[in-house]
Amino acid sequence: MAGRLRVGLIGAGRIGKGHARTLAAMPEVALAAVADVNADAARALAAEAGAGRWTTEPGEVIADPAVDAVVIASSTDTHAALIVAAAEAGTHVFCEKPVALDLATTDAALAAVATAGIGFQIGFQRRFDPAYAKAKALIASGALGTVETIRDAMRDPAPPPRSYVETSGGLYRDMTIHNFDCVRWLIGAEPELLFAVGSALVDPSLAELGDIDTSVVTMRFPGGALAVIDNSRRSGFGYDVRTEVFGSAGALLIGYREATPLLRLSADGVRTDHVHFFLERFASAYAEELRAFVAAVREGRPPDPGAEAARAALALAYAAEASHAEGRPVDPGRWLEGARV
Amino acid sequence: MAGRLRVGLIGAGRIGKGHARTLAAMPEVALAAVADVNADAARALAAEAGAGRWTTEPGEVIADPAVDAVVIASSTDTHAALIVAAAEAGTHVFCEKPVALDLATTDAALAAVATAGIGFQIGFQRRFDPAYAKAKALIASGALGTVETIRDAMRDPAPPPRSYVETSGGLYRDMTIHNFDCVRWLIGAEPELLFAVGSALVDPSLAELGDIDTSVVTMRFPGGALAVIDNSRRSGFGYDVRTEVFGSAGALLIGYREATPLLRLSADGVRTDHVHFFLERFASAYAEELRAFVAAVREGRPPDPGAEAARAALALAYAAEASHAEGRPVDPGRWLEGARV
Amino acid sequence: MAGRLRVGLIGAGRIGKGHARTLAAMPEVALAAVADVNADAARALAAEAGAGRWTTEPGEVIADPAVDAVVIASSTDTHAALIVAAAEAGTHVFCEKPVALDLATTDAALAAVATAGIGFQIGFQRRFDPAYAKAKALIASGALGTVETIRDAMRDPAPPPRSYVETSGGLYRDMTIHNFDCVRWLIGAEPELLFAVGSALVDPSLAELGDIDTSVVTMRFPGGALAVIDNSRRSGFGYDVRTEVFGSAGALLIGYREATPLLRLSADGVRTDHVHFFLERFASAYAEELRAFVAAVREGRPPDPGAEAARAALALAYAAEASHAEGRPVDPGRWLEGARV
Amino acid sequence: MAGRLRVGLIGAGRIGKGHARTLAAMPEVALAAVADVNADAARALAAEAGAGRWTTEPGEVIADPAVDAVVIASSTDTHAALIVAAAEAGTHVFCEKPVALDLATTDAALAAVATAGIGFQIGFQRRFDPAYAKAKALIASGALGTVETIRDAMRDPAPPPRSYVETSGGLYRDMTIHNFDCVRWLIGAEPELLFAVGSALVDPSLAELGDIDTSVVTMRFPGGALAVIDNSRRSGFGYDVRTEVFGSAGALLIGYREATPLLRLSADGVRTDHVHFFLERFASAYAEELRAFVAAVREGRPPDPGAEAARAALALAYAAEASHAEGRPVDPGRWLEGARV
Repeated sequence: MAGRLRVGLIGAGRIGKGHARTLAAMPEVALAAVADVNADAARALAAEAGAGRWTTEPGEVIADPAVDAVVIASSTDTHAALIVAAAEAGTHVFCEKPVALDLATTDAALAAVATAGIGFQIGFQRRFDPAYAKAKALIASGALGTVETIRDAMRDPAPPPRSYVETSGGLYRDMTIHNFDCVRWLIGAEPELLFAVGSALVDPSLAELGDIDTSVVTMRFPGGALAVIDNSRRSGFGYDVRTEVFGSAGALLIGYREATPLLRLSADGVRTDHVHFFLERFASAYAEELRAFVAAVREGRPPDPGAEAARAALALAYAAEASHAEGRPVDPGRWLEGARV
Repeated sequence: MAGRLRVGLIGAGRIGKGHARTLAAMPEVALAAVADVNADAARALAAEAGAGRWTTEPGEVIADPAVDAVVIASSTDTHAALIVAAAEAGTHVFCEKPVALDLATTDAALAAVATAGIGFQIGFQRRFDPAYAKAKALIASGALGTVETIRDAMRDPAPPPRSYVETSGGLYRDMTIHNFDCVRWLIGAEPELLFAVGSALVDPSLAELGDIDTSVVTMRFPGGALAVIDNSRRSGFGYDVRTEVFGSAGALLIGYREATPLLRLSADGVRTDHVHFFLERFASAYAEELRAFVAAVREGRPPDPGAEAARAALALAYAAEASHAEGRPVDPGRWLEGARV
Repeated sequence: MAGRLRVGLIGAGRIGKGHARTLAAMPEVALAAVADVNADAARALAAEAGAGRWTTEPGEVIADPAVDAVVIASSTDTHAALIVAAAEAGTHVFCEKPVALDLATTDAALAAVATAGIGFQIGFQRRFDPAYAKAKALIASGALGTVETIRDAMRDPAPPPRSYVETSGGLYRDMTIHNFDCVRWLIGAEPELLFAVGSALVDPSLAELGDIDTSVVTMRFPGGALAVIDNSRRSGFGYDVRTEVFGSAGALLIGYREATPLLRLSADGVRTDHVHFFLERFASAYAEELRAFVAAVREGRPPDPGAEAARAALALAYAAEASHAEGRPVDPGRWLEGARV
Repeated sequence: MAGRLRVGLIGAGRIGKGHARTLAAMPEVALAAVADVNADAARALAAEAGAGRWTTEPGEVIADPAVDAVVIASSTDTHAALIVAAAEAGTHVFCEKPVALDLATTDAALAAVATAGIGFQIGFQRRFDPAYAKAKALIASGALGTVETIRDAMRDPAPPPRSYVETSGGLYRDMTIHNFDCVRWLIGAEPELLFAVGSALVDPSLAELGDIDTSVVTMRFPGGALAVIDNSRRSGFGYDVRTEVFGSAGALLIGYREATPLLRLSADGVRTDHVHFFLERFASAYAEELRAFVAAVREGRPPDPGAEAARAALALAYAAEASHAEGRPVDPGRWLEGARV
């Protein structure tokens, strides 16, 4: 592609604002339009980011022949329909995760993507974090030998509002989905056995919804490698995202991120700070994933992570729910069928 | 007790030597005798540590009315019989873990201890490591709120000789037993559900023995707290013992131990070192546990951790083996019956 | 100020490009023009940043009534004349350090600023780094008690080209000037005694120019507090900027910045990375200082650090040169006269 | 030497007790006697450490033909006379630093050592700390290239009692002497220029004594390498001993020592602990230096650091005092004459 990629942004909320700033700063992108059901939000963000126009109708942006690609950052329940519309219009799609909260809708949307042959990327931003990207590269280089065990932890600083939790799809589809993607990406394989156990400890009333807020998921991969994921809706100390990879020849520990390289020494010890918020922790990753999407589309390559990654992580969430409900390990193959790393 | 505690040491191997040095440096202890089946080893260690005498007959030391207590650091298969003999002689016992590799023998030895009313301590040295002791104290103080999740990792630098593995009782009884003790001690409860999965990745031929070298064990405790233990016979980088405790109000991370506080900065990054060997990592813990045993016996208090801790950790290893063999979670209550934290 | 601040950027080099991106991303700023003696550089940066126009004549931008403020990022030898021109035009100025390499020219330019009453800010970006800003706030809050000693280190990854060094003004005016500003800002006072010693170790031929590349400067402040600055043109490992502040009630250590929170554990130790380049280390500081300048000008407040900070740091460099040349401590008051922290 | 080295210990105070324990644990040493002017202290320590006998007369121990070597850990004012007595008796000497608080007495004592040809070691324990020893080895191996700058910091947790300070010889002879030894040992050369500046900030009334409690000493070495030492009688946070060595090919940072590898994460940050007391920080160094002394004497080698190191560090303290008093840099050669690294 010779000229700028003309991008429409759908969704002017917290994530959408970040994407707008990234797109505005890219010389190879023209931010053509901002759409949001809230006219004020759309107008303000379009003005701030210097977008060509704004609208409350996402469909307009998708159908606009002057738009090459859309970035979908609207609410989860709108993703699938917007993807289908974009596929029909031949417009490339970057979509925040997940495609949908259920596999049937997800499959339908991804089928439309496949049929249309558009570029599609799902927003697993962690893959673009410099530490995770370096870990993946080191594993791929063989520096760790054979990967034998992965430990992947994620905790939010505080639970989201009850209203969010109620429509989130539950802990496994909403939160663990990031870890499922991370683990299968790092190890480069799909699990053959999965066991999930969880509790409602932060908010015991979640149990009434059949939901949990604290969980441990164990997986075994072909050849015997093991992985364990632990999550909580509340850490008690800030955002916690850490991953450890153990190989036959060494290990990688992706730790918590200091906010500033400042030590405070006093009579009661040494204190440092750490990053409390996922948008702060993954600030560069959110920018990098859009740069990767734009580069792939402009160069005619399939964006990555794409449809299969989007589907497989959700399939593993289904497997976790089944294991949790049945109180026994399951073979995720039943839900993964067709997924490829 | 007014005078010195007269202690006999049984076993002049690697661990026994360390115990001899600790005992020799304690003014409140008289190292009365050293016993080892190897006469040279017994003689040399007795000379080095200034022990009153040496022998190749442990029974002599136990029966000696001039010996108040014995420290058993001989091979595992001798522990139970020595404990029974000491119980019959009214001699207090500090015993390296485990009492025995099977619950029946363990129960018989601990029954003799109970009948005799002697002081008994089991060598779970990690409880006396300054970092672990501080973590336990912080949890007990309520500084973490309610404990919700524990992650406990242990990896050896390299696998032991095949001959050791073959008589070790398997990964769960030999290695994970330390983690079982650590987790139940930190959380102060017994698990109600346990799921174990493992692989023979370091030495695939272990599978022929029905053994494994890499494992993940998940546990759920009454009230819903979760714990996960991961082990490997080989780390690829050195001794790895790290424990994380997440509570409603914060978290504790017991990390790897630097060997020296020395950073090397060069064009390819920053390098530090870490401790490679468990005796180095837990050097002070091995001394502290003996000091605690001596203090308890001299003051007429029951030593801790005692018989129940010794039994319960082995019972959890049984549960892990059952879960592993059956491919499903189990209720460890069946093996734990009678154990108390 | 109600509308956007209309800013002209002078200089489209490495620093200028960064400033252009920061300004382009600020909704409260309109980037009115980019000037550079290199037409291609000016044109390209204007296009990328969406500037209204470009020119090879900085004077045009300064004189443009549609320009409220200029950001001067051209070569050092142009700074003073551009400041004087801006003062005469009533245009506010943000200027990269230093104003000039000599005090006489600096004083003349700053006199023009004072006469015109324009807002003036000097580019000591370190003050806006989150770690340094937090350190300053903690000191001001009294958390450290009385400041007693400061250690301030700065080393470049590799020496600049000989041509740069030859016109740099020497180590004290070019490099130590940052540390002079940092120390006097943190401690909030001017030194009463200064001793400088240095060597040409990285490039011994610098001695022919009367210049050095390795230096230690010691200062004593009224009341007896001490500070020591050490610099090198080459670290052997990457960019090194670290500052330690010791007070009667504790200490602050601003350390090296990890590039990624990734530990690599292998048999030969633990490895992390660190940031190698000052633009990377101070990326957020370069953005924050412009935001502070824009906010001050729009709100009619004097920008900070201003003329006095610009002058005082250079005055201390003069004192260091005198001490170095004479081989004895000097009272910097002679050069500082009139400066205020 | 075939048999055990028969060692007499002089001084049963804090340091003496530690030495007694180290000697008692060494199979190659027989602790022959403990002497202290306080009979109770001598008797108790002799009993605890299993020494052959005790006395209140150090001269008896020195003259005892059954004593091969003495460890002098009595008060500083007794050192020189005891060294002379030992030299006359042909008894090898390990002596806590310093030999004496003045050069004349020091020179006389060391002359007696030289004349007698006994083994002599001075207690600069830092050289035996694993981190410092590793740093020295790395420098010697060339891993850092040429050493260009050293930064050496030492702060005590709290100032000693006034009575101690009054007879300590002042900050440079009492405290900085350790840093003088450390720097000249690491760099392997003597300084050719030294500038010292100090203040009485912790206890301003020290100024009446002509003493200080906060100091910065700068040194230049032949070839131009620089070193800077900063000291304080009080840190505000605990014991602070850190050393940084910058070479042409990298750097070494010996940092503060964590007491336990335990991180506490809470909403207000991450906390670790650190070692507060010099005996804790250098516990292994105090043991290692005695092991090195015993090994050297038994093998007929001259112990190291010996007489020259003992003298040179004191000579540099004299130079620092002269510089401080005169307010100008001095050439330490005048005091160092005859010293060799």
